[in-house]
Amino acid sequence: MHLMSAPITTEDLRQRILNKDPLALSRLITLVENHRPGYDTMLDKLYPHTGNSLRIGITGPPGAGKSTLVYQLAKSYRQQGKTVGILACDPTSPFSGGALLGDRVRMHEVADDPEVFIRSVASRDSLGGLSATTNEVALLFEAYGFDIILLETVGVGQAEVDVMHCADTVVVAIVPQSGDVVQAMKAGLMEIADVFCINKSDQPGANLAEQSLQQLLSLTMRDFSNPIVQTVASKGEGIVALNEAVEKHQAYLGSDGQLRRRQERMQKMLKQSVEIRLQQNLWDEAGNTLLEKFSIEVTAKQRPPFAAVDHLLNQVTPTS
Amino acid sequence: MHLMSAPITTEDLRQRILNKDPLALSRLITLVENHRPGYDTMLDKLYPHTGNSLRIGITGPPGAGKSTLVYQLAKSYRQQGKTVGILACDPTSPFSGGALLGDRVRMHEVADDPEVFIRSVASRDSLGGLSATTNEVALLFEAYGFDIILLETVGVGQAEVDVMHCADTVVVAIVPQSGDVVQAMKAGLMEIADVFCINKSDQPGANLAEQSLQQLLSLTMRDFSNPIVQTVASKGEGIVALNEAVEKHQAYLGSDGQLRRRQERMQKMLKQSVEIRLQQNLWDEAGNTLLEKFSIEVTAKQRPPFAAVDHLLNQVTPTS
Repeated sequence: MHLMSAPITTEDLRQRILNKDPLALSRLITLVENHRPGYDTMLDKLYPHTGNSLRIGITGPPGAGKSTLVYQLAKSYRQQGKTVGILACDPTSPFSGGALLGDRVRMHEVADDPEVFIRSVASRDSLGGLSATTNEVALLFEAYGFDIILLETVGVGQAEVDVMHCADTVVVAIVPQSGDVVQAMKAGLMEIADVFCINKSDQPGANLAEQSLQQLLSLTMRDFSNPIVQTVASKGEGIVALNEAVEKHQAYLGSDGQLRRRQERMQKMLKQSVEIRLQQNLWDEAGNTLLEKFSIEVTAKQRPPFAAVDHLLNQVTPTS
Repeated sequence: MHLMSAPITTEDLRQRILNKDPLALSRLITLVENHRPGYDTMLDKLYPHTGNSLRIGITGPPGAGKSTLVYQLAKSYRQQGKTVGILACDPTSPFSGGALLGDRVRMHEVADDPEVFIRSVASRDSLGGLSATTNEVALLFEAYGFDIILLETVGVGQAEVDVMHCADTVVVAIVPQSGDVVQAMKAGLMEIADVFCINKSDQPGANLAEQSLQQLLSLTMRDFSNPIVQTVASKGEGIVALNEAVEKHQAYLGSDGQLRRRQERMQKMLKQSVEIRLQQNLWDEAGNTLLEKFSIEVTAKQRPPFAAVDHLLNQVTPTS
């Protein structure tokens, strides 16, 4: 086979991803996830082909049915003839791996569709955390040309909140129990939500949860009145309304609002990438050796701590 | 008054903290929390007087009764004639401020004792996160000469887990419900716990919770068999046993183990301080202006992202 006989270069893969080759996409994701040499130049070259997808983030507390919602959203966008990339974002956790795989099984229906691509990213071994990796992989998805990118988080935490900053529209899913509204609020989800989804709304308390949310939202001054949609994702109920709510938010943003949001996102990405590189420069073998030596000396009170900090700093920025 | 008539220098405060002046301690904490000019030199000068306190960390899920435990521990150490500094560590959260103050009210009994000092630190406006501030304030506590430093976290998250790395012995408190054991495990508390405390053990299920914990612990290979203590902190029950469990852990560590732990802690502190300073150098006014300019240009596709990253990096490390 041709694939086996000739060495595949990053340049080949870059051409092939633009021709919608899923294998090339897969390989480039691995390259990017591990920050292999050349990943940055490759992303720079693909960059002119990005920015034409709608990124929808889906987050919420565990048990809110996020995976089923993502599955139903993917199905509905496919019915509209749109291509869909799904990115499940899992922060470092040795405990959630199994659950994630379990959820994926339900995905078999959309996963068999060649116009749907599913990938998980974890921050376990990735540099710079989950949101940096998510943003970089999302750029690859955009270069591939998906109409819709669904960014799904597994849990709720600061890492997941950061991931949601990579989205154009953020859907926060909760279930109809007042505890969930409070949990979502505490986790900082109220601030990042564009659309609320009360999933499993065939359970008691859905209307009460909607009222609580409405009241909470009326307390905060917002230009945009965030839509609240009730769904039963397991039965496909309310998905059309959820689609419309996302559209409504995009219409509210308009091209100016979207540009502003994307500029802010880019600012976060650039800032984070600079800091990651600085840290890599800093903590190379020599830097780590010096750090260890100083830790021993400072603990033994042979050197004061901030004198050691200054010394370490001068190693990397000799001109400052 | 003398305090009003003469300007107080950092040098004055440094002398006075060594003479156990609580007002000087208070002022130096504010200096350190806000990283005011000279805080680092001041900490370096105090550094020879640090390292003689036992730092005990108390963490666990909300509702585990951590504040009451801290109050009882403080009381029992006072009865042994030891001085106690309490540091309540609260991560950035606009919602927990009230709860924290509520808990503090219970503290009035120990708070009226001049040999007990209570202070909250928040990471809201502090540089470098909660654990950096906690470590720096704990050094001030040590210079002041407290025998015992109690580090209490308010919630459970990565920030609080990091804070616990500042402790010599970590007590993880849970309540007798199997859900709590799982929650503690998921939050990464099993890995950092030296001593387990099943508080509110007059509630049903305390023995079951202890058995579950024992089983979980037997699955992990540990040199030290972590003590599990049942307490009813609100009634002062089990506090002596908790004291003994902390002592047992310290005896297990020995001076070698403690030294190793403190070296690791110092390594984290040095590393973090270097990174904070680098970021401060990086994102000064000029750096932020350039970052904003590039964010706009990259979003408009006038510049590829990683070329912008390289350019920003060269601004701070011109020789690399």
